[in-house]
Amino acid sequence: MGASMIGLVKEHRGYGATLKEVPVPTCGDDEVLVRVQATSICGTDLHIYKWDAWAERTVITPNVFGHEFAGTVVEVGARAAGVRVGDYVSAEGHMVCGTCKACRTGNAHVCPNTKSFGITAPGCFAEYAIVKASNIIHNDANLPSEIACLQDPLGNAVQTVLSGDIVGKTVAIIGVGPIGLLAIKVAKACGAGAIYAVDINPNRLQMARQMGADSTIHALETRTSEALRALTGGEGVDVVLEMSGNPQAIVDGFAAAANAGRVSLLGIPTQEVSLDITNQIIFKGLKVEGITGRKMYQTWYQMKGLLNQHRLDLASVITHKFKLDQYEEAFQLMNEGQCGKIVFIH
Amino acid sequence: MGASMIGLVKEHRGYGATLKEVPVPTCGDDEVLVRVQATSICGTDLHIYKWDAWAERTVITPNVFGHEFAGTVVEVGARAAGVRVGDYVSAEGHMVCGTCKACRTGNAHVCPNTKSFGITAPGCFAEYAIVKASNIIHNDANLPSEIACLQDPLGNAVQTVLSGDIVGKTVAIIGVGPIGLLAIKVAKACGAGAIYAVDINPNRLQMARQMGADSTIHALETRTSEALRALTGGEGVDVVLEMSGNPQAIVDGFAAAANAGRVSLLGIPTQEVSLDITNQIIFKGLKVEGITGRKMYQTWYQMKGLLNQHRLDLASVITHKFKLDQYEEAFQLMNEGQCGKIVFIH
Amino acid sequence: MGASMIGLVKEHRGYGATLKEVPVPTCGDDEVLVRVQATSICGTDLHIYKWDAWAERTVITPNVFGHEFAGTVVEVGARAAGVRVGDYVSAEGHMVCGTCKACRTGNAHVCPNTKSFGITAPGCFAEYAIVKASNIIHNDANLPSEIACLQDPLGNAVQTVLSGDIVGKTVAIIGVGPIGLLAIKVAKACGAGAIYAVDINPNRLQMARQMGADSTIHALETRTSEALRALTGGEGVDVVLEMSGNPQAIVDGFAAAANAGRVSLLGIPTQEVSLDITNQIIFKGLKVEGITGRKMYQTWYQMKGLLNQHRLDLASVITHKFKLDQYEEAFQLMNEGQCGKIVFIH
Amino acid sequence: MGASMIGLVKEHRGYGATLKEVPVPTCGDDEVLVRVQATSICGTDLHIYKWDAWAERTVITPNVFGHEFAGTVVEVGARAAGVRVGDYVSAEGHMVCGTCKACRTGNAHVCPNTKSFGITAPGCFAEYAIVKASNIIHNDANLPSEIACLQDPLGNAVQTVLSGDIVGKTVAIIGVGPIGLLAIKVAKACGAGAIYAVDINPNRLQMARQMGADSTIHALETRTSEALRALTGGEGVDVVLEMSGNPQAIVDGFAAAANAGRVSLLGIPTQEVSLDITNQIIFKGLKVEGITGRKMYQTWYQMKGLLNQHRLDLASVITHKFKLDQYEEAFQLMNEGQCGKIVFIH
Repeated sequence: MGASMIGLVKEHRGYGATLKEVPVPTCGDDEVLVRVQATSICGTDLHIYKWDAWAERTVITPNVFGHEFAGTVVEVGARAAGVRVGDYVSAEGHMVCGTCKACRTGNAHVCPNTKSFGITAPGCFAEYAIVKASNIIHNDANLPSEIACLQDPLGNAVQTVLSGDIVGKTVAIIGVGPIGLLAIKVAKACGAGAIYAVDINPNRLQMARQMGADSTIHALETRTSEALRALTGGEGVDVVLEMSGNPQAIVDGFAAAANAGRVSLLGIPTQEVSLDITNQIIFKGLKVEGITGRKMYQTWYQMKGLLNQHRLDLASVITHKFKLDQYEEAFQLMNEGQCGKIVFIH
Repeated sequence: MGASMIGLVKEHRGYGATLKEVPVPTCGDDEVLVRVQATSICGTDLHIYKWDAWAERTVITPNVFGHEFAGTVVEVGARAAGVRVGDYVSAEGHMVCGTCKACRTGNAHVCPNTKSFGITAPGCFAEYAIVKASNIIHNDANLPSEIACLQDPLGNAVQTVLSGDIVGKTVAIIGVGPIGLLAIKVAKACGAGAIYAVDINPNRLQMARQMGADSTIHALETRTSEALRALTGGEGVDVVLEMSGNPQAIVDGFAAAANAGRVSLLGIPTQEVSLDITNQIIFKGLKVEGITGRKMYQTWYQMKGLLNQHRLDLASVITHKFKLDQYEEAFQLMNEGQCGKIVFIH
Repeated sequence: MGASMIGLVKEHRGYGATLKEVPVPTCGDDEVLVRVQATSICGTDLHIYKWDAWAERTVITPNVFGHEFAGTVVEVGARAAGVRVGDYVSAEGHMVCGTCKACRTGNAHVCPNTKSFGITAPGCFAEYAIVKASNIIHNDANLPSEIACLQDPLGNAVQTVLSGDIVGKTVAIIGVGPIGLLAIKVAKACGAGAIYAVDINPNRLQMARQMGADSTIHALETRTSEALRALTGGEGVDVVLEMSGNPQAIVDGFAAAANAGRVSLLGIPTQEVSLDITNQIIFKGLKVEGITGRKMYQTWYQMKGLLNQHRLDLASVITHKFKLDQYEEAFQLMNEGQCGKIVFIH
Repeated sequence: MGASMIGLVKEHRGYGATLKEVPVPTCGDDEVLVRVQATSICGTDLHIYKWDAWAERTVITPNVFGHEFAGTVVEVGARAAGVRVGDYVSAEGHMVCGTCKACRTGNAHVCPNTKSFGITAPGCFAEYAIVKASNIIHNDANLPSEIACLQDPLGNAVQTVLSGDIVGKTVAIIGVGPIGLLAIKVAKACGAGAIYAVDINPNRLQMARQMGADSTIHALETRTSEALRALTGGEGVDVVLEMSGNPQAIVDGFAAAANAGRVSLLGIPTQEVSLDITNQIIFKGLKVEGITGRKMYQTWYQMKGLLNQHRLDLASVITHKFKLDQYEEAFQLMNEGQCGKIVFIH
């Protein structure tokens, strides 16, 4: 293996990134080295690229970033159980301690000692990436790498959709960026009843309809909660999947939820949100689920079953494919919100 | 309304049934009278027709039998809350007491005081049927009556499939008579991983493939549990849906289940079954679910969401349509097992 | 039965209540008439007595109020299934429609068509009370009426404690008025780990210790969330039961919750609450449960098992017993918060 | 540390065991060495001592056996995360692979690659024991070692009791050997309703009453299922915890279960059991749970909460304490069934 590779590096604690030659990382005893085949851009990567307050607080530099990938194992550490050279893999990005109470009780996705691949540790926008062996997921040989690399955000969607019952339920998906679009696919594949997509971007609402949303609501043209009540005969929706992080959208989502309904929160508001807890949570007997990451590793097995049996057609979610050296154009598109998922073919 | 109607009557406690003129039943205060549009034949109806030991022990005579229907309300009792003349309806067939512990804790489907529509009470193989108002289900206007009448057996399939997690799981459906075929459709619509159908009838295995089974196993040509282990890389299947009632098939189903798997039992064996509880239930950490009827009324709401959004295409499950006076041919076909669902258009 | 009785009537839409002679109510076909033996005062009754904005919006007048009782059935309507003259009973106070989706799917406690006994319908602060037959709960003959009448608030506590796993979990109960005190008893009886009581009233914290709280926190003398983190080795508490309705206490409760924890909300804030959803719900992977009423009727069966086997000693929660004509003193005590439960012996 | 120690060794593949000098085992990188303070005898140890067909098939020799212990860490491997010299510990006995589907989806307790401490790997009936670091459980300093060593069987009881809802439910515990006695304590501590103990040994039934069973049934003097139906007003028991492994007792347990009830199977029958699946599982809508080991590690956290807050008084379950050199007397007592738990003080 060569001593150096091309990687997209977050070098300076400010706007932008640099494509440059960096050393191929060294594979530790409990790690594997992966030849990266495809990666995709997460909203988090855009935050790193643009360098907002969260990035300043959280992200290490200089660092190869990116965390959504598929590739082939080319080297295996001495204690890397269950992985072999040649394996076709992706990986869970949360590297957890394994010894805390959260880790030992099925809640590793909220381990307080988490390191994040591509955020607080080296990532995958490069020719090679180091991955903790315990985090490796084996992909089916027939799964194209451009689809396999989407499993990290798909896992967010799967965990959000399945954080409560879904079969036959009316579902509102608020915010149909890439994860919201994936959530439409997942909800439909898992037997949801009517699926309503809400956004303020007409292009995304158009994509939502293509992905299978039964109705769409433009949140600036109509009041979300009233529109959703009208669509559900006044009852409200059984399940609200909040994927926008917008405070008003969150308030509207709670208002739209039916009695005994569920609100699953994935979108990250950057400020506090004022809620009418009495009428919107207590008197409704609502369940609220905070969603972070993916269940380790149930969510990955759910995805495996869905993907291997072709229950999900994800190709249409990919709107652009680039080479890594086109990263400036790619981040520009992401920033304008005029895309579904953008994939780098390495 | 006329004073008499044509009905299919179980008149004598022996083989067969009689199509004859009978009085239109009188609608009680908490009942409604329905003009029947479509009905379908259940395996239970065949037991009644052929008059086996179970029928002798259970069924009332003389009685209009049949319990799967769709129709229009033509008369409403004084206390029949929530139902109006002209409503397009089907109904749950278990008429329960409402006051016992099972009924008051979400388990009305196993109320020990249940009366069964068309079995221990008058049914629907007739021009009109009396239905308890609390059991009425309102159908969507766009749902064809020949599909709407299938909701009773569809509900069995839905309850069986959803008696535990299903998304991404490998599923074996053992016994693909009409309810097994419906279960294939339901499992697929609810995000199951690979679906394996098992039977000894080549026609049914053929239908199973048409319904979406990913593989089929002929249980006389290969050992079910070995075949299922081979298909799942040695692990066994996550979910076994037992719909045959055959003792050997039940034993095979347990043997095929993966560690931490689920076995849901719907098929009714007519004799005791000898099980290796130690190795097949305890050491595997298995969950076993006994399934009877439909959850009242969660299962119906799950069906409503699936059917109204066209998540299930049931038309292909119907292999024959008859008029009620062709009942002898219909029961003959049922007896030979050379059919999916048979529907009477009234 | 006499034509009139003494009852505590909310006559005017303002402060106070009137003890006066009123007609014994007439028993409808699906109702029973109960000779009331004991009643207790709910916080809701104090709101009615003092007549706040909620009462003005909600409560009917003139009306005998009060909804927590135990008594003996003296008359039974023609269709009152399962109840007989002489039965020793209490009742669920939510009178629900039985036909809506919530009612038909195990969520009758949030039926949008609910009438409330003693609030929007006649109640029990009187010699006799009319109760809907379907709402009747049969008490064990050995259960004293002064305990049996506490089942309505006890049911709130039971539903809150059991709205998620409790065994071995650290639990913070924020707000230890009567229901909070009951929740301490319930949590302890159901296998909770360390139980921490939070309040701003030293008398209540003293009672909380007597009820079995393992530690108490005075919320004005120390920061609740810091105190709870210190008590749990920095992890935060597994389960937060919010019973104060105070906005700051709610915020503190969320801050004190551990990753993957649960916050169950029963206390009713009278204004909106501003929450850091990102850090306190999403990144923690928290579950939030809005609690209203009691599960109909699982909660009552849970109580029956706990009470009949003496798993709960509730006598110590009752701090005062009065005759109904001492109502002014009773409401005065309630208003000052210097009491546990106050019971009227009729 | 000395080069040798005294250990109880299963040396020959036949009856008995040998107390002898053996080398202190060597601590691997991911292991810790524990100075054993207390151990207890499991029914499994008796099988090993007496050498039955299961032992012949399963157990390695020569080997220090025993798997229930408490002790102090005296040496820590280089990669033994989260454990330090001086820690006061016990351990989960199932040493699992960590990479299979069961391990990665919360079902490590049924990992097909399990090695068992003291059965298929060296154990703890000795001065020192080697334990896999990931299996270590930290005990509270105030927990006596003779209680702490009981957590392995206590964990079986906890997992069995809590494999479904328990609060307020009627519970039959069939087979009240040591784990059955622990289950009585656990069920009572977790809010069970009436607890019925069933056995054929009058001494054990006497102990069951002392542990808190509300009624006891001698299975040879009365028919278990009839007795349990009589005690529950004809309904049957909500929860059956089968801890005897006796085929007739298993059949009786199913017959005693109420509609919509639960049967949790822990006791290991040595032959197949013939079940009336139709009437005892399907028509009842029963749930059946196969129980093996302890949930890794939720069960241990549940125990920690219960033990640290003194919700369980286990001292009374210990009927005998011995030094390790009294092992012959100890196994003799176990064999006669005239004991609760027997503890070795090392």
